[in-house]
Amino acid sequence: MGMTIAEKILAAHAGKDAVTPGELLECTTDLVLCHEITTPAALRMLEERGMDRVFDPEKIVAVPDHSVPAMNIKAAQMYQKLKSWVHEKGIRHFYDVGRGGIAHVVLENTGLLKPGQTLVSGDSHTCNGGALGAFATGVGSTDLAGAIYAGRVWFKVPETMLIRVTGEAGPGVTPKDIVLEVIRQIGADGANYMVMEWVGDYIDNLDMEGRFTLTNMAIEAGGKTGIVAVDGTTREYLRVRGVEPGEYTEYRSDPDAQYRVVLDIDASQVEPTVAYPHIPSNGRVAGSDAIAVTHAYVGSCTNGRISDLREVARILRGRRVADGVQMTIVPATQAVWKQAAVEGLMEIFVDAGATVSYPSCGACLGMHTGVLGPNDVCISSSNRNFVGRMGDPTAQIYLASPATVAASAVTGMITDPRTMQGAEAAD
Amino acid sequence: MGMTIAEKILAAHAGKDAVTPGELLECTTDLVLCHEITTPAALRMLEERGMDRVFDPEKIVAVPDHSVPAMNIKAAQMYQKLKSWVHEKGIRHFYDVGRGGIAHVVLENTGLLKPGQTLVSGDSHTCNGGALGAFATGVGSTDLAGAIYAGRVWFKVPETMLIRVTGEAGPGVTPKDIVLEVIRQIGADGANYMVMEWVGDYIDNLDMEGRFTLTNMAIEAGGKTGIVAVDGTTREYLRVRGVEPGEYTEYRSDPDAQYRVVLDIDASQVEPTVAYPHIPSNGRVAGSDAIAVTHAYVGSCTNGRISDLREVARILRGRRVADGVQMTIVPATQAVWKQAAVEGLMEIFVDAGATVSYPSCGACLGMHTGVLGPNDVCISSSNRNFVGRMGDPTAQIYLASPATVAASAVTGMITDPRTMQGAEAAD
Repeated sequence: MGMTIAEKILAAHAGKDAVTPGELLECTTDLVLCHEITTPAALRMLEERGMDRVFDPEKIVAVPDHSVPAMNIKAAQMYQKLKSWVHEKGIRHFYDVGRGGIAHVVLENTGLLKPGQTLVSGDSHTCNGGALGAFATGVGSTDLAGAIYAGRVWFKVPETMLIRVTGEAGPGVTPKDIVLEVIRQIGADGANYMVMEWVGDYIDNLDMEGRFTLTNMAIEAGGKTGIVAVDGTTREYLRVRGVEPGEYTEYRSDPDAQYRVVLDIDASQVEPTVAYPHIPSNGRVAGSDAIAVTHAYVGSCTNGRISDLREVARILRGRRVADGVQMTIVPATQAVWKQAAVEGLMEIFVDAGATVSYPSCGACLGMHTGVLGPNDVCISSSNRNFVGRMGDPTAQIYLASPATVAASAVTGMITDPRTMQGAEAAD
Repeated sequence: MGMTIAEKILAAHAGKDAVTPGELLECTTDLVLCHEITTPAALRMLEERGMDRVFDPEKIVAVPDHSVPAMNIKAAQMYQKLKSWVHEKGIRHFYDVGRGGIAHVVLENTGLLKPGQTLVSGDSHTCNGGALGAFATGVGSTDLAGAIYAGRVWFKVPETMLIRVTGEAGPGVTPKDIVLEVIRQIGADGANYMVMEWVGDYIDNLDMEGRFTLTNMAIEAGGKTGIVAVDGTTREYLRVRGVEPGEYTEYRSDPDAQYRVVLDIDASQVEPTVAYPHIPSNGRVAGSDAIAVTHAYVGSCTNGRISDLREVARILRGRRVADGVQMTIVPATQAVWKQAAVEGLMEIFVDAGATVSYPSCGACLGMHTGVLGPNDVCISSSNRNFVGRMGDPTAQIYLASPATVAASAVTGMITDPRTMQGAEAAD
């Protein structure tokens, strides 16, 4: 029986020729990604058991990102813990504050994560890395501890959902709109413990940044991870980052691979989509209702890349954020931050009255840099709009593409970016 | 008997021809500066007494700066309180998040604060404004409430200390070094309830940004405020900001004005100075001791201006922040931020491995964006190094000029900037 990409990767890492969904495996991990929020708990477990070691310091990547530079003493301590561990264990792949950014986006650019690999991290958006044709998934601190100690982790082989996206997206419709539409159709539990495998000519034509946005959101449909097969776009992306095709394994789903669900999406029919509170599946067409916003947030591991910032700049150029709206723009990494500066985007943002933050997870999860107060209404390019996610439980979070966030910041109302000149060029 | 500038301003605002130190006056306030930390407490007092009004909405300037964008729900509520009050009272001079920055630095650039005026704010560094030849001072929330309600405030007329700075400062010696040296000589209570009036050819030749650094630090010697008489530099600074000489009153101390203390400083003898923990008067020559740092902080109302960032860039250009050092650079306002971007300083900072923050009071007072953890050691361009000021009480804070902070960030040790090529051009 044929296998999917994910099944092939897991089989290879369990030393088996074939695996089937539901089977329990012990897999080797090629990479373990560690940030300062969940890693300290894993390290404490290991220390308490006298198991304070790392399986291979070269296979651990450490990136403080959630609460740095620290917003309180506790955060400073979490950072200190990560940093001292990194030094003690000789972990070279440490992207310290000022040299990194949001862990997932830092990692995708390092060339360390390669197709065919397994990656785990104590963070639910680890699925982001699946765009590189790897099996990348978030685990709890206990599994993380095991991975750090032994370089191994237990998996139940997931079923796979095939998402076939065809056609060309219209103006103002971005990968974020596509994935919000998928989640709207299948529900926030529609891909529970499944791999979401993306195929189709829309995907073939999509750049890596857009693919990361798609795989990043797998967890918002309950998915174990998202994945995209390697193609020329992937190879070129890796080559630029110093990784040649001979250095990794390309897996491809067999023609007779088994899928639990096959979903067809016609990209040309997707409209700019906004996920209403309080669940990412609550999608409606942008601008359907008159909704005033107090906050507009661009950032996160989902949509804080340079292509996202360019779209925002295209809309903000020559315009002003509406009075009374607090707009925060958070480039995902120092590299994105610098690129935005070099391209002159920063002046556009500041002229528009937006605040530009240092790279961080920031307000996406209500940690700092724009935490919402009571009854605030935020349009956000982030990934999760649960009650209290970005701050006060009475705040309302609407998820959208960076283009929609920017258009809404300008009008002060949730706005279809296609109604705003300049915005329609976004893709 | 002759009067000082400060005495003349207070007399004019109390409707008297002459005043003497120690006298109690009720003065009118020309401007009241409000931020989101101390203003809500003042407003609550007024509301509880049925006195919820403002004496003149045109004379109130509101600038959220300490905890914006919010780092927690409580901060978001403080901001909401300020914002809703501003709208309710029709306060037009509102520099919202994304359009402002650190209140003192925003205000100095608006042209709203003019020579000869009185300014109060619920913030101890309000003395910053004295560089414009105004009487500017911090008050508690109760006095702030009175000023908001009545446009009046009680003052005991302060005695004045005359600080005469002559000569030319050597390379690498900045106004921050001068003021740290003054405080070293007189002590952190050396100017208790005095006005610190700055004169001398060093002051005559100093630009406005440097003068603000001097008056800003008055409170660190216990001073009621700092002040500099209006001259051509002041007039030109104001003219650029749309304020013509006819629009304000220039006061000058009489030749026979009475000074409690006269201090002479030879600028050419001052060296790059670092105030050791835990008091700003604990100054020593930079680099006297081998002190490793974990954090380097550039920012605050004292030293977050464009001239400060240029000095930092001059040192960081082509260099890297030492491994293990977290460097945070916080432009004081959105305007400074943009100017740094336009001048290409941002790329230099990011290439060096520094984090650039949005404008805010940030870690200067341990609120966010680089709060110190246990035993952290920070070299900072800010103004106060009390125990726990920037975070954990076991952390050590060393105060210095931006040049010294940058040089220390590069070496990872507290460093005399004169030892670093490029740095010696700083002035």
